[in-house]
Amino acid sequence: MNPALSELGRIYPPERLLVQPGQLVPYESDALTAFRARPLAVVLPETTDEVVQTIGWCARHKVPYVARGSGTSLSGGSLPVEGGLVIGLNRMNKLLRLDPAERVAVVQPGFINLEVSNAAAPYGLYYAPDPSSQPVSTIGGNLAFNSGGAHCLKYGMTSNHVLGAKVVLPTGEIVELGSQSLEGVGPDWLGLFVGSEGLMGIAVEVTLRLLPKPEKYHTVLAAYDSLEKAGNAVAAVVASGLLPGAMEIMDHLAIEAAEAAVKAGYPMDARALLIVELEGEAPEVEAEARHLGDVIAASGAYEVRVARDADERAKIWKGRKAAFSAVGRLSPDYLVQDGVVPRSKLGQALLEIERLSQQYGLRVANVFHAGDGNLHPLILYDGKVKGQLEQAEALAGEILKLCVSLGGSITGEHGVGMEKKAYMPAMFSQADLALMRRIRRAVDPDELANRGKMFPHSEAPALTPHGPHPLEKAGVIWRE
Amino acid sequence: MNPALSELGRIYPPERLLVQPGQLVPYESDALTAFRARPLAVVLPETTDEVVQTIGWCARHKVPYVARGSGTSLSGGSLPVEGGLVIGLNRMNKLLRLDPAERVAVVQPGFINLEVSNAAAPYGLYYAPDPSSQPVSTIGGNLAFNSGGAHCLKYGMTSNHVLGAKVVLPTGEIVELGSQSLEGVGPDWLGLFVGSEGLMGIAVEVTLRLLPKPEKYHTVLAAYDSLEKAGNAVAAVVASGLLPGAMEIMDHLAIEAAEAAVKAGYPMDARALLIVELEGEAPEVEAEARHLGDVIAASGAYEVRVARDADERAKIWKGRKAAFSAVGRLSPDYLVQDGVVPRSKLGQALLEIERLSQQYGLRVANVFHAGDGNLHPLILYDGKVKGQLEQAEALAGEILKLCVSLGGSITGEHGVGMEKKAYMPAMFSQADLALMRRIRRAVDPDELANRGKMFPHSEAPALTPHGPHPLEKAGVIWRE
Repeated sequence: MNPALSELGRIYPPERLLVQPGQLVPYESDALTAFRARPLAVVLPETTDEVVQTIGWCARHKVPYVARGSGTSLSGGSLPVEGGLVIGLNRMNKLLRLDPAERVAVVQPGFINLEVSNAAAPYGLYYAPDPSSQPVSTIGGNLAFNSGGAHCLKYGMTSNHVLGAKVVLPTGEIVELGSQSLEGVGPDWLGLFVGSEGLMGIAVEVTLRLLPKPEKYHTVLAAYDSLEKAGNAVAAVVASGLLPGAMEIMDHLAIEAAEAAVKAGYPMDARALLIVELEGEAPEVEAEARHLGDVIAASGAYEVRVARDADERAKIWKGRKAAFSAVGRLSPDYLVQDGVVPRSKLGQALLEIERLSQQYGLRVANVFHAGDGNLHPLILYDGKVKGQLEQAEALAGEILKLCVSLGGSITGEHGVGMEKKAYMPAMFSQADLALMRRIRRAVDPDELANRGKMFPHSEAPALTPHGPHPLEKAGVIWRE
Repeated sequence: MNPALSELGRIYPPERLLVQPGQLVPYESDALTAFRARPLAVVLPETTDEVVQTIGWCARHKVPYVARGSGTSLSGGSLPVEGGLVIGLNRMNKLLRLDPAERVAVVQPGFINLEVSNAAAPYGLYYAPDPSSQPVSTIGGNLAFNSGGAHCLKYGMTSNHVLGAKVVLPTGEIVELGSQSLEGVGPDWLGLFVGSEGLMGIAVEVTLRLLPKPEKYHTVLAAYDSLEKAGNAVAAVVASGLLPGAMEIMDHLAIEAAEAAVKAGYPMDARALLIVELEGEAPEVEAEARHLGDVIAASGAYEVRVARDADERAKIWKGRKAAFSAVGRLSPDYLVQDGVVPRSKLGQALLEIERLSQQYGLRVANVFHAGDGNLHPLILYDGKVKGQLEQAEALAGEILKLCVSLGGSITGEHGVGMEKKAYMPAMFSQADLALMRRIRRAVDPDELANRGKMFPHSEAPALTPHGPHPLEKAGVIWRE
């Protein structure tokens, strides 16, 4: 073993320092399957001190690193760079504190999202951000990518639910960002860390805000004969002053897929389905439900169903949550895209996506967080047909450019990662990007933390073909 | 005139380049009256280009500068450094765009807070953050200090209502931070600017989020025979799941002062008054009002009044809003303090403040945004009694340390500015402060933008006695 890796061996016992090719395979990719890269090694720290020592090792040897939880990133955010280090945080998965009176939970970064709500349930509390990956994704990864979910319309994304974080900076220093009080001092330093995609350090303790579990839900499924009417219904609900917990739209293709997969009982002739869910204390929800009923009645829905109990509610959501994977039944392959448009531009965006779909001759299923203007077009293609993947990627790019041109964003919740860094200049000026880069370097002078992500002109060596690694050039890199 | 000032004279006509001592006097201080400093000059730009040219001039000559709106900062945030430049933005006061459909207003930094709501009123919209200074304070200053107000409980501070800002960086580059879409990319760069107290550049265009004006208000005034009961009532309202627009507490001394000043008709025998205001669509407010009635009835209030119309509502708020200035009737002088404690620690904090008040022999009136845990103790003293100001300041310091020890913050909405930078190490570690400083320098390498504020070991020359200015050392400084 080379001298540098031997040093790591003094921090970690062999079972937590993975160097054999077979051990590295699971860490070579994440949920964005288009990319692969072989790391130098994987370490599995169990304490903050081990994280600090590891960061120190990386700094001394100038080895880029990526912190990784469950690897569910859809933008390649948890990919290593070739020859870099993976810091797997799944063993730092303790619930450190749960205070029902203060309504906070303090967890380690490897703690699973859904487990926060499970731990809080006996006190009538829950953790609001609900990415679809919540049964497996970790809080550390949720922070890095500022994860959202269907129920983020009312209460916001991860950044709205993180009160504080203890962070190991790329310099090895430990800082405390944020506080439990509702009003902070100066700039939002914590907000600079949340969503920074691992470029500004590693959170080792995270303080989360818990909310009282809604006493009552009121879940409405409305069927429309056009996507446009469903989109306009969303605008009408917002204009009415109501703030639902979730507002989701599925188009015909998504309905078909979901129905085939889980038999949610959706109206199969609908061109678009709108799911609206109110949540809160019973008296308010009842008043809001009457109000919502009037708005939906006026919106041109040809069929409206209201869940009468928890089972009916679960069935409505089952279809929605299954929609992504269900699309796999309609097509051998698909790309999930993630873009945002101002809510008022939803109808225009959907029409344009339909036009692009026809132009490219590729089907696009639309499932989206309509209340946020967060689109998730699923682009269906067949990887076995030569050129179709490239066509699908080109179509995805056109959709992102459309989002930007409508005043929106290239990502709502999946992040930039590897996948979208080429689109950053479509959204940000050279001065914007230069500012971000200067701040990044102020935090991480050697740009080691999750090198190669987010910034278009990446400091990372090309993933393929394998470029020489600094340790390799120095003759110390480990090879089998 | 010296050569450096002559250069400024090529940017500004004489009426917008103030250099005479008499012209400079209004810019020597702000609403924190304890500090004064004489600037080199004051410029009054009317365009973004003039701001860029001015920043360039400052960078070339290494002259520190402060951007200033109406000078209402209570922490000395808009004070110049001795010999520095004041960039007065009151002439950049245009409403650039108001889009009722998108619910946004785009304004220049010198636009007055209350004028945003006035401009939006014909469309049934308003701008939510309502600092007491709102009839005079500017949006630029509100951004710099992330201003709050009584009605920020439900909808948050300025940072929650700013969607974007065009900023002239200290390097002279122009960047666009934030976006109109609800979900952004990467870290919260805009959040880094909002609340940065002028240290990271000058906003020249600000995009604000407008909200629909509440259809209905429900304003309750509850009287208690102890502060503790009022504090517990706040906790009970929050625990009930209700989210009022505002929840304010005044103690006996504040009640007495307000009543003497504006005859609000408050119950004079109360030891504490709680004001709770619900706001929103009529059906929901009515349902919530019944719910709130039950909570208040169970909270031990000995008298409960509900405003029956807009006049009664206005009367209740008139007393609350007059409380600060009304305290001037009870005492020749007073200090306004601004600290935050976790909401659950309110009762403990108030007991401790009472103990400190007795220990120092100085009366303390308490007026506060109870829902946020944001305390505004008013420390009464007589400046003509030798040593009393110092005692009052020492007491204020003890209250801030108390807030930090309870897990809160040294400022809720007034900012750090000059006044509180000495307390920063009580709240932040050396590593925390070093990180902030590195980021500040990444944005402003020469630390010219609002030099001397926020950071405890300030880069600014001492305000008094007058230290030599770089331009003076270079023999080019202007003197009368």
